[in-house]
Amino acid sequence: MQIALYQFNAHIGNFEGNTRKMLAAIEEAKAIGADIICFPELATCGYPASDFLEFDDFILRCENAIMELARAAQGIAVAVGSPTRNPRLEGKDLYNSCYFLADGVVRHIQHKALLPTYDIFDEYRYFEPATEFNVVEYRGKKIALSVCEDIWNVGNENPLYTICPLDEVMGQKPDFIINVSASPFNYLHRDERINVCKANVERYHIPLFYVNHVGAQTQLIFDGGSVVTSPNGRIYDELPWFEEGMRMYSLEDVMKGERECVQEKEPIKLIHDALVLGIRDYFQKLGLKKAILGLSGGIDSALTAVLSTKALGAENVRGILMPSQFSSEHSVDDAIDLARNLGMEYDIVPISPMYDSFLQELKPHFSGKPFDVTEENLQARIRGTLLMAFSNKFGHILLNTSNKSEMAVGYGTLYGDMCGGLAVLGDVYKTQVYELSAFVNRNNIVIPENTIVKPPSAELRPGQKDADSLPEYDLLDKALFAYIEQRKGPGELIKMGFDEALVKRILRLVNMNEFKRHQAAPVLRISPKAFGPGRRMPIVAKYLL
Amino acid sequence: MQIALYQFNAHIGNFEGNTRKMLAAIEEAKAIGADIICFPELATCGYPASDFLEFDDFILRCENAIMELARAAQGIAVAVGSPTRNPRLEGKDLYNSCYFLADGVVRHIQHKALLPTYDIFDEYRYFEPATEFNVVEYRGKKIALSVCEDIWNVGNENPLYTICPLDEVMGQKPDFIINVSASPFNYLHRDERINVCKANVERYHIPLFYVNHVGAQTQLIFDGGSVVTSPNGRIYDELPWFEEGMRMYSLEDVMKGERECVQEKEPIKLIHDALVLGIRDYFQKLGLKKAILGLSGGIDSALTAVLSTKALGAENVRGILMPSQFSSEHSVDDAIDLARNLGMEYDIVPISPMYDSFLQELKPHFSGKPFDVTEENLQARIRGTLLMAFSNKFGHILLNTSNKSEMAVGYGTLYGDMCGGLAVLGDVYKTQVYELSAFVNRNNIVIPENTIVKPPSAELRPGQKDADSLPEYDLLDKALFAYIEQRKGPGELIKMGFDEALVKRILRLVNMNEFKRHQAAPVLRISPKAFGPGRRMPIVAKYLL
Repeated sequence: MQIALYQFNAHIGNFEGNTRKMLAAIEEAKAIGADIICFPELATCGYPASDFLEFDDFILRCENAIMELARAAQGIAVAVGSPTRNPRLEGKDLYNSCYFLADGVVRHIQHKALLPTYDIFDEYRYFEPATEFNVVEYRGKKIALSVCEDIWNVGNENPLYTICPLDEVMGQKPDFIINVSASPFNYLHRDERINVCKANVERYHIPLFYVNHVGAQTQLIFDGGSVVTSPNGRIYDELPWFEEGMRMYSLEDVMKGERECVQEKEPIKLIHDALVLGIRDYFQKLGLKKAILGLSGGIDSALTAVLSTKALGAENVRGILMPSQFSSEHSVDDAIDLARNLGMEYDIVPISPMYDSFLQELKPHFSGKPFDVTEENLQARIRGTLLMAFSNKFGHILLNTSNKSEMAVGYGTLYGDMCGGLAVLGDVYKTQVYELSAFVNRNNIVIPENTIVKPPSAELRPGQKDADSLPEYDLLDKALFAYIEQRKGPGELIKMGFDEALVKRILRLVNMNEFKRHQAAPVLRISPKAFGPGRRMPIVAKYLL
Repeated sequence: MQIALYQFNAHIGNFEGNTRKMLAAIEEAKAIGADIICFPELATCGYPASDFLEFDDFILRCENAIMELARAAQGIAVAVGSPTRNPRLEGKDLYNSCYFLADGVVRHIQHKALLPTYDIFDEYRYFEPATEFNVVEYRGKKIALSVCEDIWNVGNENPLYTICPLDEVMGQKPDFIINVSASPFNYLHRDERINVCKANVERYHIPLFYVNHVGAQTQLIFDGGSVVTSPNGRIYDELPWFEEGMRMYSLEDVMKGERECVQEKEPIKLIHDALVLGIRDYFQKLGLKKAILGLSGGIDSALTAVLSTKALGAENVRGILMPSQFSSEHSVDDAIDLARNLGMEYDIVPISPMYDSFLQELKPHFSGKPFDVTEENLQARIRGTLLMAFSNKFGHILLNTSNKSEMAVGYGTLYGDMCGGLAVLGDVYKTQVYELSAFVNRNNIVIPENTIVKPPSAELRPGQKDADSLPEYDLLDKALFAYIEQRKGPGELIKMGFDEALVKRILRLVNMNEFKRHQAAPVLRISPKAFGPGRRMPIVAKYLL
């Protein structure tokens, strides 16, 4: 028996496009002799479709897509994720299901039992958990179908759940397991998927065919990396990361388990590739081509420029240099060097005429008040307004260049440098920005050396340095990681060795700037806890202020 | 037996403040002879505490608050909502519980079974559902404790749920029911609470004491309106809406059911009062006093000014008039009339010097391109920048004046008129803005007549009217209500009688502007489906575009 996996870049709500791609894959799989082709979780509508799932019309279109795929399932079977309706009045309206299509009809449906409702997941908002588990028979084999999270409670060792769906079906003696997934990337997750596949196989001693989404859905980046595991626990194959594609496997060969193939994964390269894919898909799926960004001569905008030229092509990225009287000479030079290294277009628009004009008109209203954060923000907002004017006039999308450290402590101007359609580095700490820049420069210097070595500065007042207002990034990022990713409270942080006053200061900054993040651009998620839908915090609250 | 209800304006994470208020209420209740005092759901930490619930330190503080309240529970019992830890490894880490405190200790804990996970609710993200149900005995009475949603599945008629928690406890023959709630306001919800209280009593024939939160938590506005229901199904009392306060009841009198007291509720007045409370609490809970807003002479900014002066006092609200060459003469006059009617401070800052300066500097880059939405947005962004400059210089918080119709179809400028800390009218359709304005002007003219009667215009180009780009608001708002609140799809809308081309146009506008709403200010929620945490939509998607 030949089993094909198609790791698929779906587009949410693009029923025609998603179905067309899957129909083409079915034809291709038939042509190379596949018995079964597997598509990921909720492949008809894309993942996460969010509240579109509450629209009857949206579910109808999912059902129509399944009918169309079923008609094509002739001489081949199709395992594919799609929502089904809960026929009972009680409980949520939908199930998150794996369809098994064969001989032109729906042969079997297995619902998902374990519904992730943490971090970025909201599945219990829409879906009722499965209570029945059955294999489907096809061409003499019994197949256990499962959906994503249902393989993540091996031996009931995951404290989130109380049942273990595959245990329920093992009495029916399946020959192998298919798992259709939508498992997003984060750079700490890279071994977990391999480990969970092995753990399932070690428990059940049958092959596991795991197929994942690939591609970005605004913030969420799916990495692919589909996995085939042999009964002896060896990883028979792992599909590429961040690339759409199909591979076919002989069940008999997988049973033998005579090969082991796990890709090497360098975390910094994974982050790099994830971000490039995140930018590319954001533009492609919106039907857009051209990006614009402010080039300050600093490392954040430099790295954003590098990643976006890789994603979109240098000819589609335009940099705007907007020096002020507080900009250092080298800032402009460094930005020009970068643009030339990348071969991207750039313009220079000094902001002082606008800045002077605002100061002039505000003077009678501000009489006697000294220069303060108002004038700093004013510069940032004039730049945001200029960038948006280019964006509006030429149809460019503005890329935001804020990093995670800044977003965490609110070191940025709302409606100023926080403008943009997509926050490319919003989940990348400043120390990781340096690591990524070193990675980018590994073979040849793209980001000017001076951009990397100079002390970070917003250049909004004379001689300003980030270090004047913030702890050193090495220390800050460690504390932020412990608070944000690891959810350590103040007591735990102090026990970990962080200075008490520092802990208070940092936690207060993070909490009091929730209002800024609420209005931030969507952030490409590369960590297990990104700002955005995976981290939900009150804006008006008193805790740790 | 005397039972006191304290409908309580909690502040999320303000453990000291919340506990202090509850301790004072306990003393007050003791002084007037209460046997039991009831506080709302999760009263220790406030509702919704969101992901703060994932921090061990936060839960510790909840536990400390409970210990402090227990120590005060001498000679009086306390029913109060607070999280408890799930002692088992399996399942979510917490329960959402009602504590019963008496004689200085925790006498009983009843967990919540029905965990709302729809609209603005995320309870399954944090909480494990209850599986055990027991009464607590106190001073010769058996009491069924319950938490919010647990009374909302009477006779299992709510399709969302499969169990009916109070049914489970009735075998133990409770004498009455206490329900601690966190049930937010929406203007269509006003009869539902009364009806559900009656339905429970009609099923169980014992009194129900229902206590709710009051006060706003950023977007969410809790209305209070706590309810006491007699065994004969009569509403014995209903506490005021939108006001904190305590009332005490004799159980014996409630048993008799000889009175009926339901407050009259005029929807437009409820919306008005909710918005005033929403603004007031946003400022009070942030420790702020002063607001600023742009006054265009139009109805949205006029109504926002009225509501904010009611919430904060006219002396704390400052209006900025920012006319351009496209502003009509009457715009400035109308805005000045309004400011004078309200007794609020105002400044005039014409935008043309900044506008000319931007145009001048952009000219070489825009060569030959005609006036378009770029220049319109530029004006809006200069205004946003000016308002934020005042905000930064004087510590005012900028109030956003966008209405729900505009936010729905993206008729607004990101980083321009979409700036602000709080979107006061973001859940109020334009037609409701007119209704509210008429309500405000009911007794004396506050909003100038001309502001109300003139055709709406953004005044960003000569002779511009909203009706040039949008369907008439009467029609638009009806279609938006059907799509947003009622979640009707395109086919259903056409069946309802809406023109097919219009439906396509409106739905496309709503869906393609998700990116703008993603960066919008938090919206005061007054409807059953507001933009914000209750409506989760993908940004990059293809559905109905």
